[in-house]
Amino acid sequence: MKQALMVFGSTGNLMYEKLVPAIDQLLKEQHIENELVIYAMGRRDWDSDDYFNDIKSNTDNDIDWAAIEKRLKYIKIDVKTAEDYSRVKETVMADGIEDLTVYLAVPPYLFPVISKGICESGLVEKGDISNRIVFEKPFGEDLDSARSINKSLWEYFDEKQIYRIDHYLGKEMIQNILMVRFANKIFEQVWDQKAIDYVMIIAKEEEGVLTRGAYYDKIGALKDMLQSHLLQMAALVGMEPPKNYDSEAIKNEKVAVLKGLKMAPKDILLGQYQGYTETDDVDNDSNTETLVFAEASIDNARWRGVPFYFLTGKALNEKRSEIIVQFKSSDTINQLWPGEKAKDNRLKIEVAPNEGVVFQFNVKNPGLSEKIVPAKLDYCHSCQAMENTPEAYERLILDVLNHNRTLFTRWDEIETTWNIIEKASRRRNQLFKYASFEEVKEEIIHQYGEDFYDL
Amino acid sequence: MKQALMVFGSTGNLMYEKLVPAIDQLLKEQHIENELVIYAMGRRDWDSDDYFNDIKSNTDNDIDWAAIEKRLKYIKIDVKTAEDYSRVKETVMADGIEDLTVYLAVPPYLFPVISKGICESGLVEKGDISNRIVFEKPFGEDLDSARSINKSLWEYFDEKQIYRIDHYLGKEMIQNILMVRFANKIFEQVWDQKAIDYVMIIAKEEEGVLTRGAYYDKIGALKDMLQSHLLQMAALVGMEPPKNYDSEAIKNEKVAVLKGLKMAPKDILLGQYQGYTETDDVDNDSNTETLVFAEASIDNARWRGVPFYFLTGKALNEKRSEIIVQFKSSDTINQLWPGEKAKDNRLKIEVAPNEGVVFQFNVKNPGLSEKIVPAKLDYCHSCQAMENTPEAYERLILDVLNHNRTLFTRWDEIETTWNIIEKASRRRNQLFKYASFEEVKEEIIHQYGEDFYDL
Repeated sequence: MKQALMVFGSTGNLMYEKLVPAIDQLLKEQHIENELVIYAMGRRDWDSDDYFNDIKSNTDNDIDWAAIEKRLKYIKIDVKTAEDYSRVKETVMADGIEDLTVYLAVPPYLFPVISKGICESGLVEKGDISNRIVFEKPFGEDLDSARSINKSLWEYFDEKQIYRIDHYLGKEMIQNILMVRFANKIFEQVWDQKAIDYVMIIAKEEEGVLTRGAYYDKIGALKDMLQSHLLQMAALVGMEPPKNYDSEAIKNEKVAVLKGLKMAPKDILLGQYQGYTETDDVDNDSNTETLVFAEASIDNARWRGVPFYFLTGKALNEKRSEIIVQFKSSDTINQLWPGEKAKDNRLKIEVAPNEGVVFQFNVKNPGLSEKIVPAKLDYCHSCQAMENTPEAYERLILDVLNHNRTLFTRWDEIETTWNIIEKASRRRNQLFKYASFEEVKEEIIHQYGEDFYDL
Repeated sequence: MKQALMVFGSTGNLMYEKLVPAIDQLLKEQHIENELVIYAMGRRDWDSDDYFNDIKSNTDNDIDWAAIEKRLKYIKIDVKTAEDYSRVKETVMADGIEDLTVYLAVPPYLFPVISKGICESGLVEKGDISNRIVFEKPFGEDLDSARSINKSLWEYFDEKQIYRIDHYLGKEMIQNILMVRFANKIFEQVWDQKAIDYVMIIAKEEEGVLTRGAYYDKIGALKDMLQSHLLQMAALVGMEPPKNYDSEAIKNEKVAVLKGLKMAPKDILLGQYQGYTETDDVDNDSNTETLVFAEASIDNARWRGVPFYFLTGKALNEKRSEIIVQFKSSDTINQLWPGEKAKDNRLKIEVAPNEGVVFQFNVKNPGLSEKIVPAKLDYCHSCQAMENTPEAYERLILDVLNHNRTLFTRWDEIETTWNIIEKASRRRNQLFKYASFEEVKEEIIHQYGEDFYDL
């Protein structure tokens, strides 16, 4: 079978920095079984050589350029001109493509425009899963815009042709959450309010907004990070076991738990780092949050009384993304060892930059004392891999080519998470300004009256 | 306060190889707070210099001999002569000893003789806990002899003056069992028949009986190892949480669980290594077992349906002592990943020669596959210690000097374990002969129809 990947927005960062390196890696490791053509779509008046030379001179990675060049075709297109799509269709037919993935690496306002173009030209046919379409987030800017985008998509495609990317779902340790939870008797049995004290989902960034001021200032951390990556992680940690490991069964349970997740405006702390408003393309009076700390609850038998905390922000002390499952004290610890200040059990799923699982439990202090001390067990996931663990985009591109929708988000997931964010932002809280993560921690402890250690 | 440790059997291996090195270490680490005199009691016509020279030239360890010499006094005694005890008493009084520990490192038949001597001379007074008496196992050779020894002890001492040693209880990781179980919410919550498939308690030895043929041939593995060390470990793994961490509360729960432990003759496999009957001092037709594999059950709410397996033997492939807690499959693993041959969760408490905890759980195979693979997390207890972890005898001697009875066995523990062994040996099973541990494994798999992996 002859497959094609057609990328709109092919002169952008995503193509240069993520998609081409991912395809290169998949080719090197021989994961792509079929013949593959890459159509790079763009406005510029280039031919394939121009495009190839540009991408080659602007991409750092150690890429097998010969393998890319022989698969690559640049096609100039004005996305608003119907005739251009017909011309594209002719090329695709002439190339004998039997299975086509259209990848939209463009801003959301172009989603309906391009969708219309590729469908009305007959390049993609509604209901035919040999044609699929991939969208990059952000999928809308709020519930209304997401609904309107989606409505126009459903005019042109069936849900099963639509692949909405949240690249966090392609990360190794995010995929590992379900295995840790459901392939292990021990974790299965303690995964509820009887044993768990709280869950905390963290995505800290060290950098500020850099050159993305224009985009970021309209969006902010709640919509940029919490609505997508963090709530997706919460869904995987919180969901009930699915009927089976199929895409739809898993999404059903993710949506079910997200529908029960409540996040009230009063439980949300918004921050902005000092210097943010002086960033290029950012409003001088900007009220956009660059940090969120939020507490949510899930009203079901498993999670009643267990807070889910979320922390994400820019310009913090480090780049780190992880899930902390903090357990309660044992029933007997105070009865047997009164006065011992033991740390309670903790399971940490490290997503980035480390990939692994850290399990912390209590043991006897070695030696002649009878004190209790914590022991940390560290499973390094990436260390176990023969090569590097795959980048999220390798996984996701391979899954699109193989028609595997598990790691892509379904419309009702998007709708439910926008709904959560909408309710959470009904009242706009005052921003606190921070100069360092230490100040963020202080503010959290100040507001919550609790010291979340090891933040 | 001036303390004394009086050792009967002071020219034996235990004194040379264990007690003196342990005291040396305790002194070096300044754990012994009081002034200490060591009385070495023996039949030989020696003075303190003779004894000191003998022990110094026969002990390998790196000992601070000056510190030992200045505390050491050799006293010649005929343990059957009443006047000798009076003389000893005079010495002890003249030395101003206020707190006396009498340590019997002698065969059980001498227990009543020496007890009588030290009590009738007034050296030790019944009911006065400033005088304590320590016994080494074996505490009897069966239920009747243990009862009769104990009866005679109770004539002379209160139970609270009696310290029965099972040196396994002094090992770091044996003390750690209660911490792992009761200081950790996760393990507390999965420590029952809902989550645990089986428990296996292992004490394998690589050596044969060596020069201990005369003793061993009368005793065998059931009585030498299972009645004491292995059942003690089972009690700690199986007991209900005690009311508090006090000695008596812990022993109450150990006895309670041991009383519910059943081991039927049909569930016991006895073996003898090839060549055993040619050992010095062993009967040529000896029917003594050098290996036991046994299955027991505990009839209570926590353990109903969970087999406790025991394996101990000589002349095996390695010296290794450990406790395996094998968990069941998760409820969902087959439903989500049918056909995956995942290994179930396992918690291994390593007692010797390694000291640590190994936790095995399932994760995603790193990379683009979705297979499940086991990950092993390894907590090395001894690696955490500043120096070496203490030898069992350091712990036990220190506890006797400090009047701490937690790690010593109470009479009802001894009685209950002898009772278990008595019932288990009511029918004498045929011995199977083994030349290697591989043959033992095959026999176990043959009889149990189950492959206990990683034995």
